Amino acid sequence: TVSSDRLRERFDEFNEIGATDRGGVNRPSLSDANRRARDTLVEWFEAAGLAVTVDELGNIFGRRPGRNADLPPVLVGSHVDSQFNGGRYDGVIGVLGGLEIVETLNDAGIETERPIEVVAWSNEEGVRFQPDMLGSGAFAGKFDVEFAYDLTDKEGNRFGDELERIGYRGDAPCEPRDLHCYLELHVEQGPKLEAAGHSVGVVEGVYGFVWFDAAFEGAADHAGPTPMHQRHDALVATSDVVEAVRRIAGTGGEDLVGTVGSVDVSPNAINVIPERVDFTVDLRSYDDDVVDQAAEKVQREIAHAAGREGVDPECEEVMRIESQSFDDDLVETVADAADDLGAAYTRLVSGAGHDASYLNRVCPTAMVFVPSVDGVSHTEGEFTEWEDVVAGTNVLLHAVLAQASE
Amino acid sequence: TVSSDRLRERFDEFNEIGATDRGGVNRPSLSDANRRARDTLVEWFEAAGLAVTVDELGNIFGRRPGRNADLPPVLVGSHVDSQFNGGRYDGVIGVLGGLEIVETLNDAGIETERPIEVVAWSNEEGVRFQPDMLGSGAFAGKFDVEFAYDLTDKEGNRFGDELERIGYRGDAPCEPRDLHCYLELHVEQGPKLEAAGHSVGVVEGVYGFVWFDAAFEGAADHAGPTPMHQRHDALVATSDVVEAVRRIAGTGGEDLVGTVGSVDVSPNAINVIPERVDFTVDLRSYDDDVVDQAAEKVQREIAHAAGREGVDPECEEVMRIESQSFDDDLVETVADAADDLGAAYTRLVSGAGHDASYLNRVCPTAMVFVPSVDGVSHTEGEFTEWEDVVAGTNVLLHAVLAQASE
Ligand SMILES: NC(=O)NCCC(=O)O
Ligand SMILES: NC(=O)NCCC(=O)O
Repeated sequence: TVSSDRLRERFDEFNEIGATDRGGVNRPSLSDANRRARDTLVEWFEAAGLAVTVDELGNIFGRRPGRNADLPPVLVGSHVDSQFNGGRYDGVIGVLGGLEIVETLNDAGIETERPIEVVAWSNEEGVRFQPDMLGSGAFAGKFDVEFAYDLTDKEGNRFGDELERIGYRGDAPCEPRDLHCYLELHVEQGPKLEAAGHSVGVVEGVYGFVWFDAAFEGAADHAGPTPMHQRHDALVATSDVVEAVRRIAGTGGEDLVGTVGSVDVSPNAINVIPERVDFTVDLRSYDDDVVDQAAEKVQREIAHAAGREGVDPECEEVMRIESQSFDDDLVETVADAADDLGAAYTRLVSGAGHDASYLNRVCPTAMVFVPSVDGVSHTEGEFTEWEDVVAGTNVLLHAVLAQASE
Repeated sequence: TVSSDRLRERFDEFNEIGATDRGGVNRPSLSDANRRARDTLVEWFEAAGLAVTVDELGNIFGRRPGRNADLPPVLVGSHVDSQFNGGRYDGVIGVLGGLEIVETLNDAGIETERPIEVVAWSNEEGVRFQPDMLGSGAFAGKFDVEFAYDLTDKEGNRFGDELERIGYRGDAPCEPRDLHCYLELHVEQGPKLEAAGHSVGVVEGVYGFVWFDAAFEGAADHAGPTPMHQRHDALVATSDVVEAVRRIAGTGGEDLVGTVGSVDVSPNAINVIPERVDFTVDLRSYDDDVVDQAAEKVQREIAHAAGREGVDPECEEVMRIESQSFDDDLVETVADAADDLGAAYTRLVSGAGHDASYLNRVCPTAMVFVPSVDGVSHTEGEFTEWEDVVAGTNVLLHAVLAQASE
């Protein structure tokens, strides 16, 4: 089993990088804090004897050789970018957990048949640059490198320039290669494991989802002398859509969720009718048809709201990923590892997107979840009991060992 | 009559300060551009022989002596702060019009019985620091100086510090003093004059209005795994209020208008349920009871929305001004001036707030309006035909002369 203390020490030290006052971390993709987190990781990877490679998208791989260098490796990992003021567990435990597995094997002098690689994927969160899971998506052949480089954040900074700036535009090609399997440990970010009272989740699949970048362009005018019937208020139209998303998510299917998370109003002044609003829509379900139908309904609502208010609508799909169901055998490997360790577990699907969703396209893939207290994530109050983190890392260790010995 | 060319030259030169790409100006209160606008004004005031005084709130007065120094002066003016990316006419024509009157009298060698003062009031727009009409309000005894100094903008900058920084924290006390009357020329910012086809508006009064700074505090969480019934989405609650304001304004009284102009979402990320939204509400009518009733309804809606969504509401009234009806005699002076000049005019009330609203508390007050093309204001496309600006300035000249001779 892994060393709880070493993992804990690493976890605490790592999360001093970009730490926030409210107990979270602020290390959005390609920020200075993200660079420092990457630097620390590379240092620790090298200290653990891993051979480090950085690819064109800044994905960081650390390789531990196997007895047979010709066999495709077992890949484990997750991401170390965070939300704006996000949580300390999200992504971090998957990467540091992978490193801990390597150190545990090193300490025990265990050689595996296959190489083991630990990976930290670029821009998983998608909060600064959309789409999310960009590094793993490019690795899996979904996005090409130029597409990724040309993405911009709200301030207009290019992904490629920012990657260069923080020194993580590597030489290795970012493209599919032979992998034996991919395993990822992550916090659940939802309420199911806590409700079940289990420390471990065996993840069978991931919701599909769609993201829209949308906008309404109306007309600014004075809030006082402009009669109500002469207004083209981009915020009123946006509010119609926020309400519609809530209504659609409440009625469109059991597990359908819908969120307007970001709203930017211009000129955003107390006595000016909003001229332009840029906003986002996020729709998810384990059933791709449910997502499709909801997306169509939302697009219709955007058109209706624009018509009612006399504003111009824009709506661009910036992310679409199908629902994923993981490799049956690898899922059973994870369940067996939990059984071996005597850990009661829940089988579940993930409402959050994961790098595993893209890896699932190129090799057998599965995930281990640990519970999120109150189901909370993407905020500074995100918390997981340490014993659960350790339990999940042990399940990961056993699953990795089983796969690396094949 | 005034010199159209001189006024035009000044107008164009003045509006190079803080000029925007889309033909507007960006000179919010106490910004660097506002400082440069003030510097230019002081220079021109002095060149026209005016004795300049700056008071504790940065209100700038330029005095032209009368034959009788003991008589209270006729005060004319408006403001030179702008909206964020606002229009070039709003406020500017009232101040430069006042200066033009002085120069016209200088050129004609006309001495008046009473002194004439031209004023540029601080922070009329209220867009950076709420409440609006701050300088005139303090002058009229509504706000005290310390209250004004302690106001902060969204970035937390204090009004007092910013005033000091731009060098316009003057020595003269900001307090009511003896004035014969106050006259203000301004663009209408609404559609009535254009609809009537008249160059001049004789303003009989100004709407009352109330401003709220409101907020909802909910809970951030992940947009994917968080079930709809477990959400406390501050943006959904805010959208309820935006819709309610629209509904209330549509039904609460003939002339009632309601606007949510500013919305700040936190953390404002595509895949995070909005934790907190800060927003504003602006409600206006010429009937104070209508404003009161609407304000109560909006406050109830805020409470209801908070209850429905399980978020905490905040609502602070940051501005309330009663509807003003101007001095009958002075209104007739303006109407007579228009008659003398053969200008057809419309009598109307203003939906926009004005420094005149506060001056009306301390001396006989009236206003002259000129039309806004398409009724548009508080945006860069604001436009008034130049001949209308000149017509309005001539009406102002004749009204000022009539009053200064009394
Ligand atoms: N796991 C996780 O938080 N992923 C971020 C991308 C998303 O699902 O919105
Ligand atoms: N006239 C004018 O635009 N005043 C600004 C204050 C307001 O009425 O909102």
